[in-house]
Amino acid sequence: MIANPSVQVIKETPSTALIDGGGGLGQPIGVRAMRLAIEKAREAGAGFVAVRNSNHYGIAGYYAIMALDSDCIGVSMSNASPLVVPTFGRKGVLGTNPISVAAPAGQERPFVLDMATSVVPRGKLELYHRLVKPLPEGWAINERGDASTEAGTILNELSERLGGGILPLGGEGEELGGHKGYGLALMVDILSGVLSGGGYADRVHPKGEGGKMKPGNVGHFFGALLIEAFRPLDEFRAAMDDLIRRLKRSAKAEGESRIYIQGEKEWEMEEERRKHGIPLHPRVVTMMERIAEELNLPLILDNP
Amino acid sequence: MIANPSVQVIKETPSTALIDGGGGLGQPIGVRAMRLAIEKAREAGAGFVAVRNSNHYGIAGYYAIMALDSDCIGVSMSNASPLVVPTFGRKGVLGTNPISVAAPAGQERPFVLDMATSVVPRGKLELYHRLVKPLPEGWAINERGDASTEAGTILNELSERLGGGILPLGGEGEELGGHKGYGLALMVDILSGVLSGGGYADRVHPKGEGGKMKPGNVGHFFGALLIEAFRPLDEFRAAMDDLIRRLKRSAKAEGESRIYIQGEKEWEMEEERRKHGIPLHPRVVTMMERIAEELNLPLILDNP
Repeated sequence: MIANPSVQVIKETPSTALIDGGGGLGQPIGVRAMRLAIEKAREAGAGFVAVRNSNHYGIAGYYAIMALDSDCIGVSMSNASPLVVPTFGRKGVLGTNPISVAAPAGQERPFVLDMATSVVPRGKLELYHRLVKPLPEGWAINERGDASTEAGTILNELSERLGGGILPLGGEGEELGGHKGYGLALMVDILSGVLSGGGYADRVHPKGEGGKMKPGNVGHFFGALLIEAFRPLDEFRAAMDDLIRRLKRSAKAEGESRIYIQGEKEWEMEEERRKHGIPLHPRVVTMMERIAEELNLPLILDNP
Repeated sequence: MIANPSVQVIKETPSTALIDGGGGLGQPIGVRAMRLAIEKAREAGAGFVAVRNSNHYGIAGYYAIMALDSDCIGVSMSNASPLVVPTFGRKGVLGTNPISVAAPAGQERPFVLDMATSVVPRGKLELYHRLVKPLPEGWAINERGDASTEAGTILNELSERLGGGILPLGGEGEELGGHKGYGLALMVDILSGVLSGGGYADRVHPKGEGGKMKPGNVGHFFGALLIEAFRPLDEFRAAMDDLIRRLKRSAKAEGESRIYIQGEKEWEMEEERRKHGIPLHPRVVTMMERIAEELNLPLILDNP
């Protein structure tokens, strides 16, 4: 990990800490904070660390998974730029605010929940935009608050902060539980932004005068629970295996052959990629070639 | 609180505890466990308590709200009888597994998220059944795994454990994020059931031979975070007020006049009920009259 002298532990108790990220990169700040949460869990049973003054921290699940090697359950959350509309609203005020929780199993792969609290993360809209595909109904609304399937319009309105945005998990209104997804996003903002003293809602990546960049002031929230503080680890692992198998063995919907556990698709993808490599889009390769040229460095790819 | 000698603290660390409920009523067990979580948070910064061998604990939010008086953020979760189908399944294997998180504000009312991790709780199906109303699409599937709007059929299949059930938050399949609601339900089961050594999935309220009653072995998970362990309480309260106001002031969808904060509708209902009393359904009054007669006690109602 790159040492960053501006990352500071501001406050500590036996099972909590507050970290100021000094406006640095989210990833090393996140690793430092998660390590501290795990350390505290190993000593006090539970460890929770709030972080302010950080930036985008990448994959929420990465930090939750860090807890597994220390026989802990891991928790990771972050707020983000305002994109998600509250129930009955028509302007993105909250981030896609992800939640990740990871727990080890025995023979089975670890459970890794890693979810945006919106119907979809922002990246999904960008993908549909690039593929010139209409969005599925129920993902987003436009500036006027109407359901929209035009990814380009939504993304443009979002970047201009005109309004519109991604719907919370559960969708529009309350009938299918949209107020729950909205509540989860708000919970993440409280733990990551308010508790840490960082940005929250549209104060994350705020637009300065004339669109000038201001500090992102992204907030994160990390946690670890030592399993042995509650019950013997081998018992926990055996019960996790049993729970996972009960789910996987249960009756399938017509036309479906498999019930997944959160993280399973990604663990399998990782195995596949480790065996056969990571396919790169030709445009990504071109970009990397250009950067390599600029820096006068060789570009080493297995199958260019 | 009623003292229950069979409620036992099995294991403790500075910031965690495991409680065995001795098969008693969920409510007094829950109060005892939440008090312990708050006590630990006040001493160590964070307190988390897992409970096994309990029963239905009532309102998840009740316990989360208990933390507010101690200037803590409160967390409460519980598993429950199997009713909710995993993504791509067609049998209720998980409970409606509620999550509640409460956080104090300053001038504004506290934030209280209290949500089933399914689209709707079981009670909503019972209500529609009693009113002989078709369910909205997207709430439940029947034994064959098809979308169903017949509350009676679903409830009957559920009680017979034939299959079918309530959909997770996000609905059927993955397009609108059903795998996220399923993941949240599973997370609650891991924290409440697996971590505590209690029941989980269809081992909660298991059907014995010949349908005989067996212990429910319901599990709960409680937590408290001391706000002052992270930042001064008055700063936290002021930031909560500001966050709440930013949400409430943001642009409304067409035809909507108000954006709510989680718990707000219920706080207002409580004020209304304290002023004007709680209306009772005539059938409930009849039931209470019968019980009063049986016990030879007077029934005292304000407006019988």
